[in-house]
Amino acid sequence: MSSRALIDELKKVVGRGRVLSSPEELLCYSYDASPTPPTAPQAVVFPASTEEVARLLQLSYRLGVPIVPRGTGTGLSGASVPTGKENVVLCLTGMNRILEIDAPNLTATVEPGVVTATLHQAVEAQGLFYPPDPASASACTIGGNVATGAGGLRALKYGVTRHYVLGLEVVLPQGEVMTTGATTVKNTTGYDLTRLMVGSEGTLGVFTRIVLHLIPLPPAKKTLLATFRSPAQAAATVSAIVAHRLLPATLEFLDGTTIRCVETYARTGLPLSVEALLLIEADGQPEAADREAEQLASLCRECGAIQVQVAETPQQAEALTLARRSVLPALARASAQQSPGARPALFLEDATVPPSRLMDMVEAVADIGAKYHVLAGVMGHAGDGNLHPYFLASSREPAELAKVEAAVAEMIQAALSLGGTISGEHGIGTAKAAFLPRRVSPAELKVMRLIKDGLDPKGLLNPGKVFGVASHAAPR
Amino acid sequence: MSSRALIDELKKVVGRGRVLSSPEELLCYSYDASPTPPTAPQAVVFPASTEEVARLLQLSYRLGVPIVPRGTGTGLSGASVPTGKENVVLCLTGMNRILEIDAPNLTATVEPGVVTATLHQAVEAQGLFYPPDPASASACTIGGNVATGAGGLRALKYGVTRHYVLGLEVVLPQGEVMTTGATTVKNTTGYDLTRLMVGSEGTLGVFTRIVLHLIPLPPAKKTLLATFRSPAQAAATVSAIVAHRLLPATLEFLDGTTIRCVETYARTGLPLSVEALLLIEADGQPEAADREAEQLASLCRECGAIQVQVAETPQQAEALTLARRSVLPALARASAQQSPGARPALFLEDATVPPSRLMDMVEAVADIGAKYHVLAGVMGHAGDGNLHPYFLASSREPAELAKVEAAVAEMIQAALSLGGTISGEHGIGTAKAAFLPRRVSPAELKVMRLIKDGLDPKGLLNPGKVFGVASHAAPR
Repeated sequence: MSSRALIDELKKVVGRGRVLSSPEELLCYSYDASPTPPTAPQAVVFPASTEEVARLLQLSYRLGVPIVPRGTGTGLSGASVPTGKENVVLCLTGMNRILEIDAPNLTATVEPGVVTATLHQAVEAQGLFYPPDPASASACTIGGNVATGAGGLRALKYGVTRHYVLGLEVVLPQGEVMTTGATTVKNTTGYDLTRLMVGSEGTLGVFTRIVLHLIPLPPAKKTLLATFRSPAQAAATVSAIVAHRLLPATLEFLDGTTIRCVETYARTGLPLSVEALLLIEADGQPEAADREAEQLASLCRECGAIQVQVAETPQQAEALTLARRSVLPALARASAQQSPGARPALFLEDATVPPSRLMDMVEAVADIGAKYHVLAGVMGHAGDGNLHPYFLASSREPAELAKVEAAVAEMIQAALSLGGTISGEHGIGTAKAAFLPRRVSPAELKVMRLIKDGLDPKGLLNPGKVFGVASHAAPR
Repeated sequence: MSSRALIDELKKVVGRGRVLSSPEELLCYSYDASPTPPTAPQAVVFPASTEEVARLLQLSYRLGVPIVPRGTGTGLSGASVPTGKENVVLCLTGMNRILEIDAPNLTATVEPGVVTATLHQAVEAQGLFYPPDPASASACTIGGNVATGAGGLRALKYGVTRHYVLGLEVVLPQGEVMTTGATTVKNTTGYDLTRLMVGSEGTLGVFTRIVLHLIPLPPAKKTLLATFRSPAQAAATVSAIVAHRLLPATLEFLDGTTIRCVETYARTGLPLSVEALLLIEADGQPEAADREAEQLASLCRECGAIQVQVAETPQQAEALTLARRSVLPALARASAQQSPGARPALFLEDATVPPSRLMDMVEAVADIGAKYHVLAGVMGHAGDGNLHPYFLASSREPAELAKVEAAVAEMIQAALSLGGTISGEHGIGTAKAAFLPRRVSPAELKVMRLIKDGLDPKGLLNPGKVFGVASHAAPR
């Protein structure tokens, strides 16, 4: 079928105004927030209902057209980037209603396009709490969070997205609508298809409705910032916090490279001699948060902190989190500055190691950066071991990209050697697909493949993701 | 193959001393803790290693012998009861080592036969906490907990088993060994096969190693017992607790029928005029637990509690939990007393409703009990809506059982009408298999079937469970 004829078919499903097909428009849907090479799709379609999504996937199967589901494109693994120009992007940002906040039963029911921060605000206004808090919360969508199994800054104490998804409405690859799960936390009625869908990166189905578990909003929060002369002192502090059986909501680490990037571009007032910092948040009942913050501050000092600041007001807390919140824009601007006009690329990785191996990972990344002569640093969620090592390619020249990709591969091997995993919260997408067989067992991969092929025998839903482009069967 | 030849084959795998085949021995493995009709298997085998489990499942596939995995048999849905005399029970109680408690990284690695309470004690000795707490914790095994997706008394605040399983070693139905997951909470590397296995009731694989997430042990706990003149007052208290954004660890409900059974047999000192009680535990930092306990006690009084007792010592706390802990033995003894010699049967159900519908469910169960002239009551985990309505058959005469089964069916329909689910934590097994299609969508059932048939094309691993005996393909 010609592209024009296909676009007419798509318009029959969703209406004229909700299909994009001009080259300028398609360009906007050709990439995500990772350095995955952009590929423009042949069309972008914006469904407004479950029924429209179902009809679109039925159309996909009838015509053999690959579909790429997408939210706001903040992903860091290429999972929503088209893998071929025959792809049609199915963009769910128009399905963005909070359908219900059921406070007596601690649930929220939302459409996939709801922005995560919008949900945070809506439930917090009722004294409730949806803990998963990816750093992109102000832009990313709940649907994308569920698709990638997103984590974030509060996972140490509160867990990740999969802990809060109770039920789903999913359109399966061939267009059948499936409901899963329940509205209650306890539900043992056959296989847990809800959790199978969480983290499936749009390859097993398109979420059209999501039931989330909420918890009471902790009434108090206490924020601390501790600076150190060496990453080893910060790592020792993390170990001491665990050894003292404390459980802060947030326990973030920035290394010296990251701090200097942040200071150059955001000027938060940190001394440039600092080689590590920890941003820590204790929450809970007011007395408990105060007491925990005191204990945390003492541990930081005992482990050699240069300075420990404890916020006394929400404004001070906001100021203390500024450095952490500035990391991504600062790294982006640092890379642009480093090589003006050369289109630098930031490889923000997601290797996760057992928390006790934090220091080993920091050292490994520094060594790899030095070996390959690339700017390299480590920041991330120290409490749960989910680090974001990063490498900066000064241009997108093939030689430069190859060098950085080699550094990334070596870093991933280091994480695996430390008993870690290749992705903690960004997912596999296409960016990590080549590494997946190094992490999961052959049997595991075979079972994943069995499920994928069973649900999507033509391989039309988000092709090339998770399993890799090469391994994917051509549409039949 | 003759039974004798099969037993010889089994002995070749595990050794002579670890195969049972005498009628007396087989009888002990013919039932679980539910009223599921007992069926003796042709043999019981006790593997001691992953390799032995793998060889046993390979043997099962080679010879077409159905395998029923089993722990200590405390299940309440018949999931570990043989469905035919050609079944071989694979009993995992011999694989009961705690392989590692990795305190710095908050994980424990165990074999499936570890008794849940044994793990509790081992980790608590190190100031760590494994929250899932099924009422049978002193007897049931972690492997069984993972297989059924067990919940328990602390799920309101801490979640259920699936929230704590990080990774598994599983022997698949055809004997292949698969590892899943990670040792870190954050892990997004392909489909979440770990969670797919949790709650699969021994139909998708046999767990041989389980990696669990631990959290710091809350340093303080405060226990309250509140008695009420009516279940409606207790239900109102539950609603008020949620409305005040409090999150006790435990929030248990007993109705008047249950209280009178308990008093008759355990004599905990509760007045027989009491028509409902709530057992509540607040935990956390000492100040927070104290403060929360005070707020909880106030709410109980505001909602009309006759009396609110707050334990000041661990001994007092123990005394307050006595009534709750005595429920199952008391109901068992009540049933034996009611019809001596008639082999009464307790149908302890597991319907779960949104917590705000607690009172509706209590009333529905009372009405159903009256309609069918059977002893009926409700107790359970009010905070998360996971109730355990129960019905007592005074004998195992077919007419009496049919009457109680009709009452159960009506109760299940009531739970579904209230937006609930047919099982919160006991699973489907064979006992609820007939009801599963009322709860899950046809698409969901089809996907479950696709996974089961893909992994176990001959239907040899725990046949008849989840999907029902009738629907199960005969071994090919």
